[in-house]
Amino acid sequence: MSNRTDLLAANARYASTFTHSDLPAPPARRLAILTCMDARLDPARFLGLDVGEAHVIRNAGGRANPDALNSLVVSQQQLGTNEVVVIHHTHCGMIGLRDDAMQELLTERFQRPIEPQQYGGFDDLAQSVRDDVTTIRADARIPEDLIISGFIYDVETGRLTPID
Amino acid sequence: MSNRTDLLAANARYASTFTHSDLPAPPARRLAILTCMDARLDPARFLGLDVGEAHVIRNAGGRANPDALNSLVVSQQQLGTNEVVVIHHTHCGMIGLRDDAMQELLTERFQRPIEPQQYGGFDDLAQSVRDDVTTIRADARIPEDLIISGFIYDVETGRLTPID
Repeated sequence: MSNRTDLLAANARYASTFTHSDLPAPPARRLAILTCMDARLDPARFLGLDVGEAHVIRNAGGRANPDALNSLVVSQQQLGTNEVVVIHHTHCGMIGLRDDAMQELLTERFQRPIEPQQYGGFDDLAQSVRDDVTTIRADARIPEDLIISGFIYDVETGRLTPID
Repeated sequence: MSNRTDLLAANARYASTFTHSDLPAPPARRLAILTCMDARLDPARFLGLDVGEAHVIRNAGGRANPDALNSLVVSQQQLGTNEVVVIHHTHCGMIGLRDDAMQELLTERFQRPIEPQQYGGFDDLAQSVRDDVTTIRADARIPEDLIISGFIYDVETGRLTPID
């Protein structure tokens, strides 16, 4: 059973009352959010962001991996953002995930050779936020005056806690 | 001027009426969305997705780059999704973006050596969706029975068009 029919029906309803026809590409708040793909997170809602206000980059864990860094650089250099907010969250599936365990699981399930990858698992939630802030700051393509904050989102309360 | 104070105030309002305390990590619709970071896209709203229903992976262009593929593999193997929807969009900033032009611009702005990267720019919007569907299908870690659809989102109408 595919979700395709449901998604297209929901989209037809959305388009029938669409009011954002003339928005420019550069985010109005000059802001980029980096957060996890987790289904329990709706960053637009829990940050009060309206359509057109911020770039949203999401992956497993909300990590500052190479492709997320490339996206941030495009966001800043091509579309004028000057602030990044990194948000990881409680009960994340990436806590405790090991690259070697992942490769073993994949090799077992697919019965073929699987190349090693860095999936981005971590052990300490607050430290993972700090590590990603540090990774962003250390990139040669990041301006010195970029504003960066780090937060943890609690999936049981909907509340953000700043990480310093 | 940072967005931090505004975001925390909006989050406090969100948390004060939070009703999703008990959601499990696996997405209820067994679905992962791969789409662009563009500020004009709010996939939860334009697809009618409620909190807890789908993973959302976002980067510049909505490309199936190496880190997005890693996230999809985690989504499927660790959290049980069996469907991927790839959504690119009209007026995307990645249309026409060249890796060598990006590197030249960065070298000029930062006045230091910048390593070459693949940023994910493309020329043909429908073809970029097809290419990413093909890239996902071709990965050794993707199950043969995974359901994949591709769409273009029109930022001027809010409407999705299927790409076959």
